[in-house]
Amino acid sequence: MPRPDGRTYDQLRPIEYILDVAPHATASVLIAFGNTRVICAATIQEEVPRWMKVQNVQGGWLTAEYSMLPYSTLDRKDRDSSKGRPDGRSIEIQRLIGRSLRAVVDLKKLGQRTLCIDCDVLQADGGTRTASITGACIAASIAFNRLLEKGKITQQPMTKKVAAISAGVLKGETLLDLCYVEDRDADVDCNLVLTDKGDFVEIQGSGEEATFSQAELDAMLVVGRKGISELCAIQQEAIESAMKPAEPKDLQKLAAFFGKK
Amino acid sequence: MPRPDGRTYDQLRPIEYILDVAPHATASVLIAFGNTRVICAATIQEEVPRWMKVQNVQGGWLTAEYSMLPYSTLDRKDRDSSKGRPDGRSIEIQRLIGRSLRAVVDLKKLGQRTLCIDCDVLQADGGTRTASITGACIAASIAFNRLLEKGKITQQPMTKKVAAISAGVLKGETLLDLCYVEDRDADVDCNLVLTDKGDFVEIQGSGEEATFSQAELDAMLVVGRKGISELCAIQQEAIESAMKPAEPKDLQKLAAFFGKK
Amino acid sequence: MPRPDGRTYDQLRPIEYILDVAPHATASVLIAFGNTRVICAATIQEEVPRWMKVQNVQGGWLTAEYSMLPYSTLDRKDRDSSKGRPDGRSIEIQRLIGRSLRAVVDLKKLGQRTLCIDCDVLQADGGTRTASITGACIAASIAFNRLLEKGKITQQPMTKKVAAISAGVLKGETLLDLCYVEDRDADVDCNLVLTDKGDFVEIQGSGEEATFSQAELDAMLVVGRKGISELCAIQQEAIESAMKPAEPKDLQKLAAFFGKK
Amino acid sequence: MPRPDGRTYDQLRPIEYILDVAPHATASVLIAFGNTRVICAATIQEEVPRWMKVQNVQGGWLTAEYSMLPYSTLDRKDRDSSKGRPDGRSIEIQRLIGRSLRAVVDLKKLGQRTLCIDCDVLQADGGTRTASITGACIAASIAFNRLLEKGKITQQPMTKKVAAISAGVLKGETLLDLCYVEDRDADVDCNLVLTDKGDFVEIQGSGEEATFSQAELDAMLVVGRKGISELCAIQQEAIESAMKPAEPKDLQKLAAFFGKK
Amino acid sequence: MPRPDGRTYDQLRPIEYILDVAPHATASVLIAFGNTRVICAATIQEEVPRWMKVQNVQGGWLTAEYSMLPYSTLDRKDRDSSKGRPDGRSIEIQRLIGRSLRAVVDLKKLGQRTLCIDCDVLQADGGTRTASITGACIAASIAFNRLLEKGKITQQPMTKKVAAISAGVLKGETLLDLCYVEDRDADVDCNLVLTDKGDFVEIQGSGEEATFSQAELDAMLVVGRKGISELCAIQQEAIESAMKPAEPKDLQKLAAFFGKK
Amino acid sequence: MPRPDGRTYDQLRPIEYILDVAPHATASVLIAFGNTRVICAATIQEEVPRWMKVQNVQGGWLTAEYSMLPYSTLDRKDRDSSKGRPDGRSIEIQRLIGRSLRAVVDLKKLGQRTLCIDCDVLQADGGTRTASITGACIAASIAFNRLLEKGKITQQPMTKKVAAISAGVLKGETLLDLCYVEDRDADVDCNLVLTDKGDFVEIQGSGEEATFSQAELDAMLVVGRKGISELCAIQQEAIESAMKPAEPKDLQKLAAFFGKK
Repeated sequence: MPRPDGRTYDQLRPIEYILDVAPHATASVLIAFGNTRVICAATIQEEVPRWMKVQNVQGGWLTAEYSMLPYSTLDRKDRDSSKGRPDGRSIEIQRLIGRSLRAVVDLKKLGQRTLCIDCDVLQADGGTRTASITGACIAASIAFNRLLEKGKITQQPMTKKVAAISAGVLKGETLLDLCYVEDRDADVDCNLVLTDKGDFVEIQGSGEEATFSQAELDAMLVVGRKGISELCAIQQEAIESAMKPAEPKDLQKLAAFFGKK
Repeated sequence: MPRPDGRTYDQLRPIEYILDVAPHATASVLIAFGNTRVICAATIQEEVPRWMKVQNVQGGWLTAEYSMLPYSTLDRKDRDSSKGRPDGRSIEIQRLIGRSLRAVVDLKKLGQRTLCIDCDVLQADGGTRTASITGACIAASIAFNRLLEKGKITQQPMTKKVAAISAGVLKGETLLDLCYVEDRDADVDCNLVLTDKGDFVEIQGSGEEATFSQAELDAMLVVGRKGISELCAIQQEAIESAMKPAEPKDLQKLAAFFGKK
Repeated sequence: MPRPDGRTYDQLRPIEYILDVAPHATASVLIAFGNTRVICAATIQEEVPRWMKVQNVQGGWLTAEYSMLPYSTLDRKDRDSSKGRPDGRSIEIQRLIGRSLRAVVDLKKLGQRTLCIDCDVLQADGGTRTASITGACIAASIAFNRLLEKGKITQQPMTKKVAAISAGVLKGETLLDLCYVEDRDADVDCNLVLTDKGDFVEIQGSGEEATFSQAELDAMLVVGRKGISELCAIQQEAIESAMKPAEPKDLQKLAAFFGKK
Repeated sequence: MPRPDGRTYDQLRPIEYILDVAPHATASVLIAFGNTRVICAATIQEEVPRWMKVQNVQGGWLTAEYSMLPYSTLDRKDRDSSKGRPDGRSIEIQRLIGRSLRAVVDLKKLGQRTLCIDCDVLQADGGTRTASITGACIAASIAFNRLLEKGKITQQPMTKKVAAISAGVLKGETLLDLCYVEDRDADVDCNLVLTDKGDFVEIQGSGEEATFSQAELDAMLVVGRKGISELCAIQQEAIESAMKPAEPKDLQKLAAFFGKK
Repeated sequence: MPRPDGRTYDQLRPIEYILDVAPHATASVLIAFGNTRVICAATIQEEVPRWMKVQNVQGGWLTAEYSMLPYSTLDRKDRDSSKGRPDGRSIEIQRLIGRSLRAVVDLKKLGQRTLCIDCDVLQADGGTRTASITGACIAASIAFNRLLEKGKITQQPMTKKVAAISAGVLKGETLLDLCYVEDRDADVDCNLVLTDKGDFVEIQGSGEEATFSQAELDAMLVVGRKGISELCAIQQEAIESAMKPAEPKDLQKLAAFFGKK
Repeated sequence: MPRPDGRTYDQLRPIEYILDVAPHATASVLIAFGNTRVICAATIQEEVPRWMKVQNVQGGWLTAEYSMLPYSTLDRKDRDSSKGRPDGRSIEIQRLIGRSLRAVVDLKKLGQRTLCIDCDVLQADGGTRTASITGACIAASIAFNRLLEKGKITQQPMTKKVAAISAGVLKGETLLDLCYVEDRDADVDCNLVLTDKGDFVEIQGSGEEATFSQAELDAMLVVGRKGISELCAIQQEAIESAMKPAEPKDLQKLAAFFGKK
């Protein structure tokens, strides 16, 4: 059964990124997993949350917020602020992003600072949470490098890289990195968050309206690990390129991003 | 390393239950996993949510709400209503409860009705979400049996049982059904939701501030499956006992529940 | 005209209670006035509200919250948190509970502490506010005794007991302790809060869609005083029993509470 | 012990009123109990609340809202809207105003209409709820008369007049119509709502931080009945004057109202 | 084309005012532009907003709130508090009132105090924001005079007077001070805020569903300046009269205000 | 006095744009006025607001929302949804954007549809509201063209173009298109919204903490008209280019946009 965009079962969508789309952030990246586009920004604040002060906890903090821009979905989605609060799904995702990043950051090395991760979905085509985590790791890593360059911190707080990808089972077939129509029809959906060392940070497998077997779980883990490995290589390249001057091939990427409709 | 309550690494806490503590609900159960006590109520409403009518979806719906009573925690917890909304953790848990139950319920057999699951934590000592799912399955199952008895529905909507349990890794040791102090100190926490047939409904493994290996995941799955199997037997007994008159041993259970402080 | 449950016009419903149903509270009681069941918890917090600090008021504070669990009513009631705030009736009742308890507590003897009273209705069949006040007095009294035992305070802050009961006029007849169907049809409804010395703490008589005469008020006060007197005896027994080991007759009570539906 | 403004123990403060201060309302009155000034407006809406349509209840409805203008108190009070909701005290008072008026209005004679009562306190010096009820009855009565004149209704929905007054016990003395400083220091505060026939609509007696005896209650009822009787005469005069042209003595009243500070 | 109330194109509506309608405010005025009536109150608070303390800004602050009373409009308007927040239009207007007053007040001369301006619309017939600003300037000015009298401040913080008026274009004709029906039908609506020296504080011209030319703008400025000049004379008279005893002609004004409906 | 970026007093910042950055919108544009970058999206919804249906208004509607992304400012700005509502400034701006666009759109030609304009600020350096209006006109115009192409509408609803620009007075000098530091220090700030025919849609001139003269207003209008004229030419080019294939010079633009930090 061919996939909508012709990929093989264990193939990622094209992963593209543009750095520093929001220059007022300490670091930012517009990351794309195919048609899914997310702005991930990392902003340093020179203070820690009130609860840390009250409880006298040392070191820094890392927090995350996730939101879908109203025009990111096929049918326009009302803003959270018009409802007075983020919806349940957004809260669940931003808690996941925060946990995932904190697992690879040594907050003590950050000093009395907070790193705010903001993930705003510009276009949604499945996998917005995995793109968010993967992009947030790039932005956070560059932000830390910039703190090091400025001498504000003396040790790199990010101890490993973290990336995320989805795997699922659709009509009996195990698939990597599901796009929206695949995700909608899948019997099982699994989000994997792993480090570049191959360790788990988080696994969330869910069979809404369905169940799944141990064999299916194992198969999803195999394709997932392959995807994570490829994403970590791209992250590495992105983080390094932030230190170099822009090159002509960047323009090719941009053209692919923002082509005519 | 001995556990605080002397259990072996793969032993559940004592599981107790009292049926119909809230008689205005269609069915209810006060379930205890050791010192964790949750009131799980299942209430039938003779209508479906607005979105189902708008989209003309056939069959019924199942929704869940989760809340901690303010005196359930060691330090009193403010009510959600005093903050104007449920907190992020509560939303995440009630979404999980709803998904878990819907995976084993054939909503078409429910007719144009909604089954509302309410889980209110009376005492929290770790594992409130797993106790909630396990108790909610008992309450829902009894509620469906009562609908069948009254002739309101003609087929059992619950196709399988579903139960949940936590597993974790603490100082290198794999543990089943973590109490609060174990959960607080654990490096990895995994919540497993499985059917009585041994299939997964949901797996959520998380290593906040830490990571975990494939071997650790595998070990947690082994103890988790053992726990789920025992919980399903208790669920079966509870559901059957709802049809029989009360027996003296119920009184022993109650005495254990509500002993002097 | 016989009453729905066969009581005489000035007879209370059966009053039952189970102590310490929520062990994380300083003291708690599940109290029943017939089919009306309320969990009353008293929790000590080692601080006073902000306004007391700002205004430099000495001594402690006592506050109360009241809520109906969604499955306590015949038709499921939405949670306050889903509406973003408690409803008007709940606010009115929790203000009444707080005032009633503060009238019999010498807050100066409490030190810089707050006693939080939480009343959560498990089953509603009329008289939830009177059961709440009567149960809250039991829980508060036991909580204070436990503070005394631990040496945290040196004098009993509760100077008298306080209990509450409803009286009403239905088709010309004066009735004590109205159940839901009586309350719904009554022309006049009067809630009386009195001390064990027979003094008023609060009187609230209301004839929604109707009026009542001085003679009717007088008659309600007579039956009300009889009920309050009986409730105070039960409170005394409950408070004393909290200090003794559990006895077999407790199990009989529990069986009555949680019988088959 | 002399009262702050030299009144005898059972004397009302000067009661003044100006009709139709808010001409867009169906009827309105600015009523003063001494320095307490409340704008009471009655507005007819040609529809009934949603719950009446859903439950197919015949006749009309009457609802009330109460609010303190921010500059009505000695220290400026934040607006309810800045806190996102009315405070508990306001909700309690507006529920009382609504119940009190509904007790003397035959809603069936109102047709499918809602009478909205709005009470906005311009200056608060004790007794704002009793002034609100007393003024609301005037405004409602004039509004009904205007509906009758226009032929929109054929029978007077207001079957009796209703008025309200406070009584209290201060240093052992029973007082009528307490001003702010008396109310603040009183041991007992009782709000009485009675009809012009002498029947009770509502009685609310409360001894915050204190209790009161049957004898004290009886004494408060005696002075309260005297006050209610005088208020009903003033109501009658106000309602009749709404039908006549303005007279010079109105100007004297106005001058008293709005004198130099 | 004659105007609804017979005015010439550049004529203000009758401007009336009553001082100190809300005596608990530092100063207050009920101002009328024809049938538009607004209560403007100025209240001194002996503290500054939190942000000023945090940023260590010297001097005082001036803030404004604007609200329409529910019975001020022809169809009753829901209270802001029932919606949980002020609506967009109210927020826009109160921001304008605050900016306008701050432009003529030297906040440094106010000391560590906040002047709160409250504008509550009693009757709305077009021009509520211009009446609010004009009345707020009177109230603020009198409030400052009273602070000077009491010796709390030593220099007058109000450096100029500020007044506001609307101008518009309706069927090709330039009009001053539009009433509601004119405002509703106008192609262009312009609100002008000027000082008594003839300088602009704010200009807001808007052609909802339409546009306007430079010539139309110029014509609106001409009539607007004429109106502002007349308003400033009335403001001066009002501020001076606050210092003098009441005179008989005040009673004539009051009679005009509160005539029979 | 030289400007921070070396512009002459009546020179616009470089205006750049990228079309269709959010492909799920009907049309979108990322517009830059120098360092100020705003995503403007136009989304067609096949329904009209409830109030239009209730009042039976024919034709379509156009609404606008404005928000600053949290990382758009130098200090991270909390999301509106975390505060439960948009702030006053955002509400004021989105009302202005909506009014400005509706002034040049014939809503009857839109059919029973709503055009939703969303403006999300990616980077804020002064002039975000003028960039929003200018970009929103481009997005709306392209969206209408696409509806025409698809045959959903038969006539162009946009009757004119509309653009906006700021002008101000800083240390006596009239400036066009103020960047953040100029705006912060300016004595007067004027936002002009004009059509491509030179007519006013809206003028908002404000001198917070200051006033301005007629001569200053006139001078701001002169430079503003020059800026508007240049913006309209750029709008025309953008709208036409949406119909043509991408060209290499687009890549140059993109490189300029997203260069290294």
